[in-house]
Amino acid sequence: MQSNAKFHSLLCPDSIAIVGASRNPAKLGHVVVSNLIRSGYKGTLYPVNPAGGEILGLSVIPSIGELPSPPDLAIVALPRDQVLDAMRELETAQVSAICVISAGFRETGRDGFELEMKMAELARRRNITLLGPNSLGLVNTACGMDATIAQTLPSKGSIAFFSQSGALCSAILDWADGENIGFSKFLSLGNKAGVSEADVLEALGDDPETKVIIGYLESVDDGDKFLREARVVTGKKPVIMIKAGTTQAGARATSSHTGSMAGSLVASTAAFRQAGIIEVHDLEALFALARSFSSQPLPEGPNLTVVTNSGGPGILAADACEAAGLNLARPSQKTLDILSEALPPFAAIYNPIDIIGDAKADRYRVTLEAVAQDEFTDAILVLLTPTASAEIEETAQAVIDVAEGCDKPIFACFMGGQRIGPGRDMLIKAGIPCYGYPEPAIGAVEAMYAHYRWLNRPYPVEVCFRRDKGRAERIIEKAHRIGLAELPFEDAMEIAMAYELPIPETRLVRTSDQAVRAAKKLGYPVALKVVSPHLRSKSDVGGVALNLKTPRELRDAWMEITTRFQRKQPDAYLAGCLVQTMGPLKAREVLVKFTQDPQFGPLVSFSLAGPSAEVLGDVAYRLAPLTLQDAQDIVREIRSFPLLRGARGEEPVNLAAIEDILLSMSQMATDFPEIREAELSPVLVDAEAALVTDLRLTIG
Amino acid sequence: MQSNAKFHSLLCPDSIAIVGASRNPAKLGHVVVSNLIRSGYKGTLYPVNPAGGEILGLSVIPSIGELPSPPDLAIVALPRDQVLDAMRELETAQVSAICVISAGFRETGRDGFELEMKMAELARRRNITLLGPNSLGLVNTACGMDATIAQTLPSKGSIAFFSQSGALCSAILDWADGENIGFSKFLSLGNKAGVSEADVLEALGDDPETKVIIGYLESVDDGDKFLREARVVTGKKPVIMIKAGTTQAGARATSSHTGSMAGSLVASTAAFRQAGIIEVHDLEALFALARSFSSQPLPEGPNLTVVTNSGGPGILAADACEAAGLNLARPSQKTLDILSEALPPFAAIYNPIDIIGDAKADRYRVTLEAVAQDEFTDAILVLLTPTASAEIEETAQAVIDVAEGCDKPIFACFMGGQRIGPGRDMLIKAGIPCYGYPEPAIGAVEAMYAHYRWLNRPYPVEVCFRRDKGRAERIIEKAHRIGLAELPFEDAMEIAMAYELPIPETRLVRTSDQAVRAAKKLGYPVALKVVSPHLRSKSDVGGVALNLKTPRELRDAWMEITTRFQRKQPDAYLAGCLVQTMGPLKAREVLVKFTQDPQFGPLVSFSLAGPSAEVLGDVAYRLAPLTLQDAQDIVREIRSFPLLRGARGEEPVNLAAIEDILLSMSQMATDFPEIREAELSPVLVDAEAALVTDLRLTIG
Repeated sequence: MQSNAKFHSLLCPDSIAIVGASRNPAKLGHVVVSNLIRSGYKGTLYPVNPAGGEILGLSVIPSIGELPSPPDLAIVALPRDQVLDAMRELETAQVSAICVISAGFRETGRDGFELEMKMAELARRRNITLLGPNSLGLVNTACGMDATIAQTLPSKGSIAFFSQSGALCSAILDWADGENIGFSKFLSLGNKAGVSEADVLEALGDDPETKVIIGYLESVDDGDKFLREARVVTGKKPVIMIKAGTTQAGARATSSHTGSMAGSLVASTAAFRQAGIIEVHDLEALFALARSFSSQPLPEGPNLTVVTNSGGPGILAADACEAAGLNLARPSQKTLDILSEALPPFAAIYNPIDIIGDAKADRYRVTLEAVAQDEFTDAILVLLTPTASAEIEETAQAVIDVAEGCDKPIFACFMGGQRIGPGRDMLIKAGIPCYGYPEPAIGAVEAMYAHYRWLNRPYPVEVCFRRDKGRAERIIEKAHRIGLAELPFEDAMEIAMAYELPIPETRLVRTSDQAVRAAKKLGYPVALKVVSPHLRSKSDVGGVALNLKTPRELRDAWMEITTRFQRKQPDAYLAGCLVQTMGPLKAREVLVKFTQDPQFGPLVSFSLAGPSAEVLGDVAYRLAPLTLQDAQDIVREIRSFPLLRGARGEEPVNLAAIEDILLSMSQMATDFPEIREAELSPVLVDAEAALVTDLRLTIG
Repeated sequence: MQSNAKFHSLLCPDSIAIVGASRNPAKLGHVVVSNLIRSGYKGTLYPVNPAGGEILGLSVIPSIGELPSPPDLAIVALPRDQVLDAMRELETAQVSAICVISAGFRETGRDGFELEMKMAELARRRNITLLGPNSLGLVNTACGMDATIAQTLPSKGSIAFFSQSGALCSAILDWADGENIGFSKFLSLGNKAGVSEADVLEALGDDPETKVIIGYLESVDDGDKFLREARVVTGKKPVIMIKAGTTQAGARATSSHTGSMAGSLVASTAAFRQAGIIEVHDLEALFALARSFSSQPLPEGPNLTVVTNSGGPGILAADACEAAGLNLARPSQKTLDILSEALPPFAAIYNPIDIIGDAKADRYRVTLEAVAQDEFTDAILVLLTPTASAEIEETAQAVIDVAEGCDKPIFACFMGGQRIGPGRDMLIKAGIPCYGYPEPAIGAVEAMYAHYRWLNRPYPVEVCFRRDKGRAERIIEKAHRIGLAELPFEDAMEIAMAYELPIPETRLVRTSDQAVRAAKKLGYPVALKVVSPHLRSKSDVGGVALNLKTPRELRDAWMEITTRFQRKQPDAYLAGCLVQTMGPLKAREVLVKFTQDPQFGPLVSFSLAGPSAEVLGDVAYRLAPLTLQDAQDIVREIRSFPLLRGARGEEPVNLAAIEDILLSMSQMATDFPEIREAELSPVLVDAEAALVTDLRLTIG
């Protein structure tokens, strides 16, 4: 972390002032001093309190102005209304970093919010690193610094944790204490007036003591910066995060908690995925993964071998394995030979390898030794149930010994309570994750293999699409001038042309005679569509007629759809109809769209067209700009993808044509943040090509 | 359990013979004797061993023939090949129940399987209750009987557990020991040669000491009986089960484990649902639910109130709540008044009620007292993180006190490790479930509310549909006679008529001239469909033309589809085409189907028609016979249901018309098990009516 100058004073200060230090053990200003002393902090401590005297053997300095030299870091634990003044004095005293423990700011309403804005402004102007307010404090075990108000001192380890919730930090410290989990750094972000999640990620990414970063967030403040940092950091070490407030109920609770907006779930999930962040949805998974990532190598393939002394849990593991998209490894011939020799006749030597209930530790050992050498196995899960014959500690030792000389990750699942306890403790101490049930163990393998694939993904190909930006700009400017929100169809079509989207030849006509003339030029069959600024979706009012083959059919259709439109929306303005060449008739219909997310910027989505995808939530999202890989991924991510790939012997559609459209739209979204929403629906696509038959652009 | 004569000797024996009892503590025949003595069994014990002498102070009887009086129960722990002979002797000695601990039967291959069949046959013929073989034994804590080979003696409680996996039993006993969980009965079913899961359910359902039944199954042997028993038992007490082998990998592992077939996942899930069994998918959930169900009343509504001293976990709880389909209760005005008075200004008095980080126990107490009285709250979740101010044991006591006088279920989630430990122990001892994370606590509320709804469901309306069974019988007999598998379309249509399914008027024609004549009679527009015994799905080969309005269009279509058919399947026999009146043009297309499941019998399924439902797995299942409620449920269960109900302002379709078809099909499936598969696809349905436009029946 030394490389990061901005954070150095915060995380490795040579001296710390505790402003609001107190002699009363019930006060936060006392707990911080006490924690710093208990944790063995080696630098200089300056308790500051107008009362003077001594606190825990340290002589108290009466005011910030009387500090003998500028401290690197100040911890502020004052009543809310004194914080801003203290910060001004600290600035004069040339402090480099401030952590504000005090609460009562943004989370309490307008007054608090304004106070917090002033603090943030001060810190920004004077280049002071500000953590909090409403922070629980921070820990750096490398230099024995616990500057928190928590009760439990964390032990040293390789996991860095940051959290937007302070109380959660207390729970985690208490929990980790009993679980033999150690931390490198521990940061409570509080209201994030100064230091943001992106800053923290950057600093922890560079920290040599940190092997795994885990975080709890309720909101992301600067999506773009966060994403950029995260992408760099996840290439160096795993980042595991939980995002709270992902449902409507959760979002409401969020905004009343820290006064921050939870933002769009799909955008944050897309952001995490594109940045290689491992997202989990509950705290249990967060810690289970932290432990596995920090202690085991990554599996280099999806092939897991399960060794068990009990069939039932073996089956549950096999179920979980398949559900996670992992394979049960096929043992090599050599392994099979060793196992048939070593195991009793009723043992199952195929994976899951069931060494059966009367197995002692030696049977585990010989099996694990064979599997550890097996070239077809990428990861190993050892299951144990405490049968009458089970030798629990000896088995734990066998696992530890085999893991020693093995470059594959090994996971244990010792099921039970009291009896398996000593074995479990041995394993954890030796750095082998030990779970109580098969399912979370499989979850860890799944996440670690996904991270392996992330690290070995193809180098991202950034695509800059050819387009006539000036032409699009002129149209959007015009719309701005006349105050239009949704662009007229002709203008939208022109922008589509500027971005070289594949659109059908189209004529806007006002009478059926004009329609017939236009169709003659375009060539039959044609489609006919009503045009009105008051229309949300043409098909909703039956305003579309397709595959019209003759002038007669065209005239009939004109009568039918215009009449129907006027009956359904008597007050709406009917600008005319479009005559279009027909797209391929046997095509699939897809939908490409982008919106602007307030936290993460342009968000591109892809689905099949039609109400079904919407109802079933079968939509995939990515943040723009899309790389080529993103465009390929988003198409394949929807559950309906088999329909595009060609289910039941049908021809696959031209996926590259869809990807080109996605990349063009990504380019458009990046070029014009003022396009608030763009929707191409439907895009027809068959084995040959794709065709954008309708589009809507909204600016704002 | 006294009411169940068959089980009485097994579970409450007055005397037990241990055949294969041993003086060697490493032998299973020793462990059983030792466990029976340790558990304080009050009846008479007869260790049987040719060596004679004494075991643990009991004098050994040299052979079964020398038993002084017929024991109620015999535990057999002999080498495999001596078991059958011992059973024959036990039969002569007039024993009523036998539990075979010995392994090496069905699970090891053909020899073992045949031996097991002979044992089963003997037990059946002589009306002996046979548990196992390959059983870990059984426990009845009510009479202090532990007749297992497990290491850990279970303590007394109200949970009954049965398991098809013996080793899992050991794990559970060990785990429960540390978690203060007690059992009423504990049965290891082993290979289920005699006593089946249905028998056990029946017995446990009648057992006054059992409040909750939990079970682990890999296979279900007599689906029909199991379902019948389960439906009765779930009306008396909750049954929570985990079914292993639900994936292909799991099923393969299952068959190599106990030699049983895992069977179809969808059928067992449908069976569980229709029987009111609470299905879980991992062991953690199994025990979490067992604890909650056994200690708390059921919530009588979906409205949960969360009380927390920390915003973050409150948000996670709110997220989980919404995901589980529960509501965050709106506090009553009275509650709001009390809370605004009692809580500090920055507290959040709306749900989640955040009493903030400096809360001590008194703040919890006053809040919980108010919420416990709140008429809008059906269940309460208390979250605690160990902040500096938290008073953990005092808070636990407050929760216990409030729970005392409260008829709503209360759940706790104390997050952390060492520090919260004492509070957690107090809660568990007082019968308040305490979880480490918010999510599993919400999962418990969800399952308990679902069970409440199950208990209060409308009385099932059994429907017997009008049909001409004889007419259908004659057709099926004819097909049997001539060895047909798939019925010709005309025959299938006639069966449809016998079951009064709504079918369009149809004519089979062999030439386009005949087609035009038929269409004239039926009236335009018509549909034209190729008919061939070699055709799987008409639309796959483009063998369907719809909405033909004129003789000209009909003739064109004839040319087109017959030519296309012959080009795609040059060797296939073309029987002709069907001319049909058209169904409604703006209809939704759905699919109704049944198959025969080997374990559970006729399985009816429902989905939208088309490849999308199949690809997305959006299909709902129920076992026939369907009640009226089942028919209503299955239609509403698919995720696409909003499309039928009328999404985006469209008219809803006639759901009752679909339900009638489902009930007719259920009747057909029950009447004719020889119909292996029946598929109606598509069924057109609009606001008025439903129309079955195509169907396939396969017999076997």
